[in-house]
Amino acid sequence: MGDNNITAAMIQSVTLDDVNDTLVILDQTMLPNEKVFLKLKELKDIWDAIYHLKVRGAPAIGIAAGYGLYLGVKASAAQTKEELAEDFERVKDYLASSRPTAVNLFWALDRMEARFQRELSGSIAEIKEALRQEAEAIRAEDEQVCEQIGRHALSLLKPGWGILTHCNAGAIATAKYGTALAPIYLGEEQGYGFKVYADETRPLLQGARLTAWELMQAGIDVTLICDNMSSIVMKEGEIQAVLVGCDRVAANGDTANKIGTSAVAILAKHYGIPFYVCAPLSTVDLRCATGDDIHIELRPDEEITSKWYEKPMAPEGVKVYNPAFDVTDHEHITAIVTENGIAYPPFADSLPAMFAKRK
Amino acid sequence: MGDNNITAAMIQSVTLDDVNDTLVILDQTMLPNEKVFLKLKELKDIWDAIYHLKVRGAPAIGIAAGYGLYLGVKASAAQTKEELAEDFERVKDYLASSRPTAVNLFWALDRMEARFQRELSGSIAEIKEALRQEAEAIRAEDEQVCEQIGRHALSLLKPGWGILTHCNAGAIATAKYGTALAPIYLGEEQGYGFKVYADETRPLLQGARLTAWELMQAGIDVTLICDNMSSIVMKEGEIQAVLVGCDRVAANGDTANKIGTSAVAILAKHYGIPFYVCAPLSTVDLRCATGDDIHIELRPDEEITSKWYEKPMAPEGVKVYNPAFDVTDHEHITAIVTENGIAYPPFADSLPAMFAKRK
Repeated sequence: MGDNNITAAMIQSVTLDDVNDTLVILDQTMLPNEKVFLKLKELKDIWDAIYHLKVRGAPAIGIAAGYGLYLGVKASAAQTKEELAEDFERVKDYLASSRPTAVNLFWALDRMEARFQRELSGSIAEIKEALRQEAEAIRAEDEQVCEQIGRHALSLLKPGWGILTHCNAGAIATAKYGTALAPIYLGEEQGYGFKVYADETRPLLQGARLTAWELMQAGIDVTLICDNMSSIVMKEGEIQAVLVGCDRVAANGDTANKIGTSAVAILAKHYGIPFYVCAPLSTVDLRCATGDDIHIELRPDEEITSKWYEKPMAPEGVKVYNPAFDVTDHEHITAIVTENGIAYPPFADSLPAMFAKRK
Repeated sequence: MGDNNITAAMIQSVTLDDVNDTLVILDQTMLPNEKVFLKLKELKDIWDAIYHLKVRGAPAIGIAAGYGLYLGVKASAAQTKEELAEDFERVKDYLASSRPTAVNLFWALDRMEARFQRELSGSIAEIKEALRQEAEAIRAEDEQVCEQIGRHALSLLKPGWGILTHCNAGAIATAKYGTALAPIYLGEEQGYGFKVYADETRPLLQGARLTAWELMQAGIDVTLICDNMSSIVMKEGEIQAVLVGCDRVAANGDTANKIGTSAVAILAKHYGIPFYVCAPLSTVDLRCATGDDIHIELRPDEEITSKWYEKPMAPEGVKVYNPAFDVTDHEHITAIVTENGIAYPPFADSLPAMFAKRK
């Protein structure tokens, strides 16, 4: 590729247009067929965008919530700080109700509230400006974390490599760059010429709908395969590394990620291919000893039997097992890449050291 | 279950109604939403059923072709054997054009022709009756092969086991019983109480549409999963054996089967679960030394990007890799079950011995 404008030109899925009091969101529910940016002025529209998964990906949800809370408070006509605090709580509670299971949503709202409390000695205008700064910091820090993960992970890769990824740990799920896809964007900017294989990732098809789409947007060579084709592409020598994101990493390195990740890791080990997890330290939970402590969410049957289809593709009433995640054993993970560096086995030693590096 | 009528009551996907000069075919394109039996009198309708995959599965296609050729010749008004031979060739060539890549179609038609040639000394009525017998023999022999495979494979299984299968090597692809599903039907009749997991088998969803359907029809406990969930169900201890069919087995035991089979085999080996291939000897090709000699068919992109869906689920113009099959290494196969017995490693010795047992 050699086009050094790739990351400069990258789509950002959540941005603030402060001049127009507008939150600009890439509507991910319209992908891959239409690229629609929603310009959201009303708080209820921001709530709706989170609720209906128009914005998805833990970091992106947190960023949207931070900006949403800022815009909601900015619009407040409060004349006193007491009134402002009431409006703050009202907006925060409202946004919190949009996706009650999204941990990052609450993390961002709580962070905004802490800033609000710290700024109470200032004027109403100063408080509003502080909230804008805090929301912007949430976005900027996420971008920085992703970029750092990308730079560390890129050091593990060589030009021309075939890279397999599963699900979407991409730019549109974060402020920019993504986690697992960050080294691909950064590498392409330097002309690495990666050849990416994207698992379609049943049942919700994040690989087909999102990963393939965002890589194509950036002009990166991507090939879509079904989840059950990773073995043959590995056997045929097309893959030199696997990169995945994660939802949660235990203290011993066991990693919860989208269903099917553990199979890819076992296959990679079988074929002698390195398997890398890209993990912001915010996902590393040292209080969680092993993967056995990670609860696996079960999702609705219809995601497998009928969702997306013109008509049901499974017999009516069939029993379905639909776990959203699985746990990849730490023994199948070559390294865990964080924003503070690369953790190698034994992870029980290397992961805490990553936190110690934290500025 | 303990219901000893399971196999007696089993659906047969291709049968002859000789009284009404009708071929009765379960329309597999209507599954799993509707159970429709087509009653085909006209040769063009039989051709159409094969062409449009209303009948599918190599054995079932061969059976339909045999019956179709019989019914086509039976309808001939030929007054001389020369005229009859012309009609025979016309019908045979026509049916051969229905699915030019289906090896079993040609095998069945050639077998019918050989019988025709052997019977030329008889009367026209006698020749027609001989063709009926030959077509019936093709069906009956397939049923017998499936039942024998089922009995041998059942000896490897224990009551209460969880069984994982991939794609559809089931009753509706054969005369009866199927290959990989034969031991399940035979076992259920004896009250084994298997718990079957069916991979949905992307991109064509044979597991969801066909395997889950036919097992439910027989009242067998079946759970549908996505292909990428086999690792977690194995890890959770739900699977005690994997049973799959095959398209072609090489002399060293390497086995070509539906895409994804090799991944299931590698995972089974990882988790210490036996992996059994159910293979009629007609699929064992001793002239093919190893899996490296097996050509992998590539299928159209749209099977992955848009087939079945309300709207495309992948970006327009995305590169796609869609191999129909993969090759499972013989080292990942615990045993290959044929109608003449069970071949264990080293398969280079045990597979030829299976042929030697042939009556």
